Amino acid sequence: MITCAAPAPPSGQVQLGHGSGGKLSAALVRDHFLPELTNPVLRQLGDGAVVPVFQGEIAISTDTFVVNPIEFPGGNIGSLAVHGTLNDVAMMGAVPRFLTAGFVLEEGLDLAVLDRVIAAMAAAARAAGVPLVTGDTKVVERGKADGLYINTTGIGTLEGPCRPAPQRAASGDAVLVSGPIGTHGMAIMAAREGLGFEAEIESDSAALYPLVARLAGRFGGEVHVLRDPTRGGVASALNEIAAASHCGIVLEEDALPIRGPVAAACEMLGLDPLYVAGEGVMLAILPARHAEEAVAALRSLPLGAEAACIGRVVDEHPGMVVMRTGIGGTRVVDMLPGDQLPRIC
Amino acid sequence: MITCAAPAPPSGQVQLGHGSGGKLSAALVRDHFLPELTNPVLRQLGDGAVVPVFQGEIAISTDTFVVNPIEFPGGNIGSLAVHGTLNDVAMMGAVPRFLTAGFVLEEGLDLAVLDRVIAAMAAAARAAGVPLVTGDTKVVERGKADGLYINTTGIGTLEGPCRPAPQRAASGDAVLVSGPIGTHGMAIMAAREGLGFEAEIESDSAALYPLVARLAGRFGGEVHVLRDPTRGGVASALNEIAAASHCGIVLEEDALPIRGPVAAACEMLGLDPLYVAGEGVMLAILPARHAEEAVAALRSLPLGAEAACIGRVVDEHPGMVVMRTGIGGTRVVDMLPGDQLPRIC
Repeated sequence: MITCAAPAPPSGQVQLGHGSGGKLSAALVRDHFLPELTNPVLRQLGDGAVVPVFQGEIAISTDTFVVNPIEFPGGNIGSLAVHGTLNDVAMMGAVPRFLTAGFVLEEGLDLAVLDRVIAAMAAAARAAGVPLVTGDTKVVERGKADGLYINTTGIGTLEGPCRPAPQRAASGDAVLVSGPIGTHGMAIMAAREGLGFEAEIESDSAALYPLVARLAGRFGGEVHVLRDPTRGGVASALNEIAAASHCGIVLEEDALPIRGPVAAACEMLGLDPLYVAGEGVMLAILPARHAEEAVAALRSLPLGAEAACIGRVVDEHPGMVVMRTGIGGTRVVDMLPGDQLPRIC
Repeated sequence: MITCAAPAPPSGQVQLGHGSGGKLSAALVRDHFLPELTNPVLRQLGDGAVVPVFQGEIAISTDTFVVNPIEFPGGNIGSLAVHGTLNDVAMMGAVPRFLTAGFVLEEGLDLAVLDRVIAAMAAAARAAGVPLVTGDTKVVERGKADGLYINTTGIGTLEGPCRPAPQRAASGDAVLVSGPIGTHGMAIMAAREGLGFEAEIESDSAALYPLVARLAGRFGGEVHVLRDPTRGGVASALNEIAAASHCGIVLEEDALPIRGPVAAACEMLGLDPLYVAGEGVMLAILPARHAEEAVAALRSLPLGAEAACIGRVVDEHPGMVVMRTGIGGTRVVDMLPGDQLPRIC
């Protein structure tokens, strides 16, 4: 009664059988995932992982990555899936500790592409010092996914008094940014559209925890808000913070760090960089009296070399973000209703 | 310079803009996810969740669900995504505590379908007493996903001495099953193929933690292995356990509980129920002297009413599973190389 269909001949592509839970699945994990991602916890290959935690609170964040194209200047979906989720954990003031990964692979995906994605994932996790402790792989038929999608869930431990939250912005706070904005989104757009300026724009995808540690160590509980402006960019992130805190936010256009090629590409495509995602930059909101020292602290790390104070939190126009433009005017920076750039993460 | 494209006219379908991180995303979460899934942690709508943990160890498991069809007799992808991951946590001997969810939605998905999926997810989480604490939603273009995929990550706390693991099966142990096997897989096959016996087979998808609690409470550290035989069925699960424990396993064919309609459908399709997934059944391996009491403990719960002792762990043929058939013969129960039933979870 057993129907034991012969596997398709071995090839360099993902096959449906790789998702079966049988021998092919085991071979995929053994030959492609474990060599790069191995650590004592993952190596046990259970359906989950057991890890130690300290007493107290843990921070949890989950994100699915569907970026198109899978590979782009400055990274690929694997490194992005590590950075994106670890950054969400770091933005809660937590020390990122563990990572899980769930893959949806499309039948026919080149195993060479998968291997590059896994290698980038492993390198990003190693650099961040965070082990991938458990994972899962599913395969769907040709055409039913765009190469691959990756979900990552990150778990961090909350230590010390730093508890940033979107509702904690307060009048009198300064708004800092750790580096140039809009870089990741424009790198993806350039790669996707095959625009001529491809070589000039690399994604800024990076782990932000070292910047968080710098601020948390110095200002502790006075770090009111941390946020990485990914989907929807700085504009959407600040609108959410203004709404949650019932405060207004005033930005200074001239203070916003934007790389020249990013600004030029935005101009060419008619996009506002305020709405374009970065993946290696964060917003920090803390009392204005600490602004100068905080900018210096961020600048002491290479990732924060272009940190700047870009605005302040005010009592006026609660829930609203406005920008003072270079020529002295003021405009409202609203949330977009829908997409400016789909599938950039 | 802002290009603020007007959103597509409101409709009953998922739009690309629902994945933008802008106003449409916020509306999707507010109108479709929160009404069903709300709890104090999720309601904060941060990029993650902060939850308390006790000192000690936590168990983490992640799983992506790509079941086709999305809805089937006995459940849908939402209830399955809750049960599947909570069960993986429970199989580690942990008390399931928190759940995260990452959605990949296909543009054009009926919001009515999404609402039913979310409602089933919420009902399953409520019944299990486990809150969904954070989530994420992405939208991909029409044709780039099969309606929707859901990743869930579960976190549990390890309390008490019960630490089951695949490598802990020992010669002299009994192999128990908590109920009929192969039910979920055949329910999916029936729904997918539009076979005539649809009405008779409902998925057994269910949360197994109450069964685990019963065994852990009574036998503690003597519960050597727990495993839910999902993808690849009982045969694959026991092969993995035999390999990890360097023991042999002998099954008694006559002892295996299989519902009549499941056996008939398997027969008709030429499938071996030993390789067909269940989603509301578990294998438990513990010293044979406890077998009778353990079966009685499982049977004291409705979900375990058909629990049975189906085999034993032996020193002979390490790494291999064999079955003594009803007519007195013996056959090897190997792992399948690839797929018997793709995309059943």
